[in-house]
Amino acid sequence: MKTLSIPSLIFFLFFSSISISQNAIQDSIMLKKIYSTALTDGKAYDWLDYLSNEIGGRLSGSIEAESAVNYTEEQLNELGLDKVWLQSVMVPKWTRGFKEYAYIETNSGDKSVTNICALGGSVPTPNLGIKAEVVEVQNFEDLTKLGKDKIAGKIVFFNRPMQADLIHTGSAYGGASNQRYSGAEQAAKYGAIGVLVRSLTLKLDDSPHTGAMSYGDTPNSQRIPAAAISTKGAEYLSSLLKLQPNLQFYFKQNCKIWDDVPSFNVIGEITGSVHPNKFMVVGGHLDSWDLADGAQDDGAGVVQSMEVLRLFKKLNYRPKHTIRVVLFMNEENGLRGGLKYAEEAKRKKEKHVFALESDSGGYTPRGFSLETDAANVAQIRSWAPLFKPYLIHLFDEGYSGADIRPMKGNIDVLAGLQPDSQRYFDIHHSENDTFDQVNKRELELGAATMASLMYLMDIHGVK
Amino acid sequence: MKTLSIPSLIFFLFFSSISISQNAIQDSIMLKKIYSTALTDGKAYDWLDYLSNEIGGRLSGSIEAESAVNYTEEQLNELGLDKVWLQSVMVPKWTRGFKEYAYIETNSGDKSVTNICALGGSVPTPNLGIKAEVVEVQNFEDLTKLGKDKIAGKIVFFNRPMQADLIHTGSAYGGASNQRYSGAEQAAKYGAIGVLVRSLTLKLDDSPHTGAMSYGDTPNSQRIPAAAISTKGAEYLSSLLKLQPNLQFYFKQNCKIWDDVPSFNVIGEITGSVHPNKFMVVGGHLDSWDLADGAQDDGAGVVQSMEVLRLFKKLNYRPKHTIRVVLFMNEENGLRGGLKYAEEAKRKKEKHVFALESDSGGYTPRGFSLETDAANVAQIRSWAPLFKPYLIHLFDEGYSGADIRPMKGNIDVLAGLQPDSQRYFDIHHSENDTFDQVNKRELELGAATMASLMYLMDIHGVK
Repeated sequence: MKTLSIPSLIFFLFFSSISISQNAIQDSIMLKKIYSTALTDGKAYDWLDYLSNEIGGRLSGSIEAESAVNYTEEQLNELGLDKVWLQSVMVPKWTRGFKEYAYIETNSGDKSVTNICALGGSVPTPNLGIKAEVVEVQNFEDLTKLGKDKIAGKIVFFNRPMQADLIHTGSAYGGASNQRYSGAEQAAKYGAIGVLVRSLTLKLDDSPHTGAMSYGDTPNSQRIPAAAISTKGAEYLSSLLKLQPNLQFYFKQNCKIWDDVPSFNVIGEITGSVHPNKFMVVGGHLDSWDLADGAQDDGAGVVQSMEVLRLFKKLNYRPKHTIRVVLFMNEENGLRGGLKYAEEAKRKKEKHVFALESDSGGYTPRGFSLETDAANVAQIRSWAPLFKPYLIHLFDEGYSGADIRPMKGNIDVLAGLQPDSQRYFDIHHSENDTFDQVNKRELELGAATMASLMYLMDIHGVK
Repeated sequence: MKTLSIPSLIFFLFFSSISISQNAIQDSIMLKKIYSTALTDGKAYDWLDYLSNEIGGRLSGSIEAESAVNYTEEQLNELGLDKVWLQSVMVPKWTRGFKEYAYIETNSGDKSVTNICALGGSVPTPNLGIKAEVVEVQNFEDLTKLGKDKIAGKIVFFNRPMQADLIHTGSAYGGASNQRYSGAEQAAKYGAIGVLVRSLTLKLDDSPHTGAMSYGDTPNSQRIPAAAISTKGAEYLSSLLKLQPNLQFYFKQNCKIWDDVPSFNVIGEITGSVHPNKFMVVGGHLDSWDLADGAQDDGAGVVQSMEVLRLFKKLNYRPKHTIRVVLFMNEENGLRGGLKYAEEAKRKKEKHVFALESDSGGYTPRGFSLETDAANVAQIRSWAPLFKPYLIHLFDEGYSGADIRPMKGNIDVLAGLQPDSQRYFDIHHSENDTFDQVNKRELELGAATMASLMYLMDIHGVK
């Protein structure tokens, strides 16, 4: 065990603390300016108001998505950045069609209407809908146990709830989402003719939650329609099934998969003063589901990312690295924007050192989720005291963000903003993801937290 | 500098960690049970639904306050506690009367109606209302500067906003609340005939926020009516005053102060197995303002406190100390319940060692605010690792809670639950403090956090 004598230790601490504290004071002054400006002179909330209430749901390939591209490009142009441009990307186009219709029919012929919505990417039902018996399962293992005999010709009802005793609701979502994403693919193998999935939310209510699904390599002729049922509907159906296992379920949806269409990532940049060819990215995704306005998912992330660059301009902070805001298209049902950005960065040999995404809602920020090596984790954690006045306390290693992850392997540090997660899945992908769910201060604190990490990464560099 | 050799250091760490870790493992298992039960089998949300939607606003002395006493007593009785009783307390009774009416009248005679509400404890206006010129001020110093000449016969308009760049909104509230509490008392000294106060919220909207005010020792004949104006109304009035300093403001309210009436604190208790004569208290306040249902202020604190004892019963945890839930009456406009409880505890020489209050809303819990000595702060902070999985990270020294503070000096540890504060003042004391503002999981996490601290204090004792 190597020891220092007391005098040499004091000498060491004294002199090292001077240089540490000069940096720390400078940084802490800058963070204070960032937070104060975001809270007293922010723009994020107004931008989000427009995106949510003037434009609305921005599903890839829709008119609304196009409007959002135009609006955000125009707003970035007004910030006086060094460059603003659109990056072309082909995106899938799926439309919901008319409002879905479904009912439970008991053995006595009584029908009770229940709220469903088609999952994103689903095929439609036949024009007259589907009516069949229902087999309730918890997971894919149940399908194997039941086998073709008990599944063929029926509607498979995946009813595994999100696990309520997990503190991070994102983990609960992760633990239940394979039913939605792959339920139809798996059930089709056993001859099911449709799939119904319990909405991915911890809230018990009447609103169905949509989201992406995939048929994998299931041939077109064997693809079966898939819909989400509200949690109350799921509970009701499940309880009726216990009394009448051979009741019938009817549903009708006329969603449609179209050919890919052209769209764009929206990009703005402040060129670096010292390292113009080293790039730092902050972003969220511009597209959203169609059932509501996508205010939290991910309008919030979009306007927070724009706000980071606006704050730097407002505070006359000229970054050392080139800092880009990237508003990714098509995170929800394809990730084409994220893939395209990473591909182009690689093709152009742009050296990316840091990317930060906000795609978990604009709730009170709690910290960051980091994908990087130990040295960079350690550096970021060393900034915890700077973040403490703003109640930012999580510097966990974990998943960063869907849109920036395609850069993994070609970038030093990936990070995701971690907001408080309790309310997110109540409204996620449902008709309730509206502007009134967003609290102005929470949104602004998130933007300031992102700007603060971006500033610290810029000024101190990656390890 | 004293050093330990590596082998002796390892030996020391190894053996000390065994005893630490056995306690810590036991504690961490108990906390896990508490949180899981609260999140999967909680009762707080249902209780709050009843308090908010079946009973409603519970202003001291009202029928609703009486119903809340009866309902919570009945619910505590169903928990199988060792004792449930009502503690008599006389409370002030103030009623709002008809909905207040106000308008701004410009020099050209145009009237624009604006939203106000009487402050709690205010005298009424004359039957026909008051119409007068307005003098806008920021604080009491402005009154001194203006003097009687410029104030007498006018309505004083206190328009100092809450400071938006403070992270804890409670601090921003504290910095602006003297206008509401003492504005009328101060303005009356200069001959003002009425007082208008900017609503204490950081949100810009049309809802006025009420709250307690006091005339101090102002003689009855000199007491002037006081009302809160919505923040949008305040901004509008202020901008008009810049154009027309001699515009007129009219308002009418017929609130009334009655004689004190009898009411109750509701108390339930689990008798301690080891220290039956040492008391630990958990509580919130049963009364609320009348403009809405008081779901967050402080229905949330009431049901969370009840849930602490329910969780202990449910988990078959028999506490060492006697643990009481106290639902205090009249926090909002008199604090009589808190004063009475402290007075009775002192009179009966009941040794109180710990009290925990929840009165900052049922939002995601972040930690505790502690009023105690260094040894107890240190002990509570030593439990931070146990709380970490539940994202509880604040163990600050600071204000605990209005209802339990009267015990200060006769108790070892006072603590207040610290929930996330961003949304609280948006709805606080306004028509928007309704059940839908409460998130079930956030409420439950708060209850579990309170139960966890109560458990740790009980099992380890105060220092």
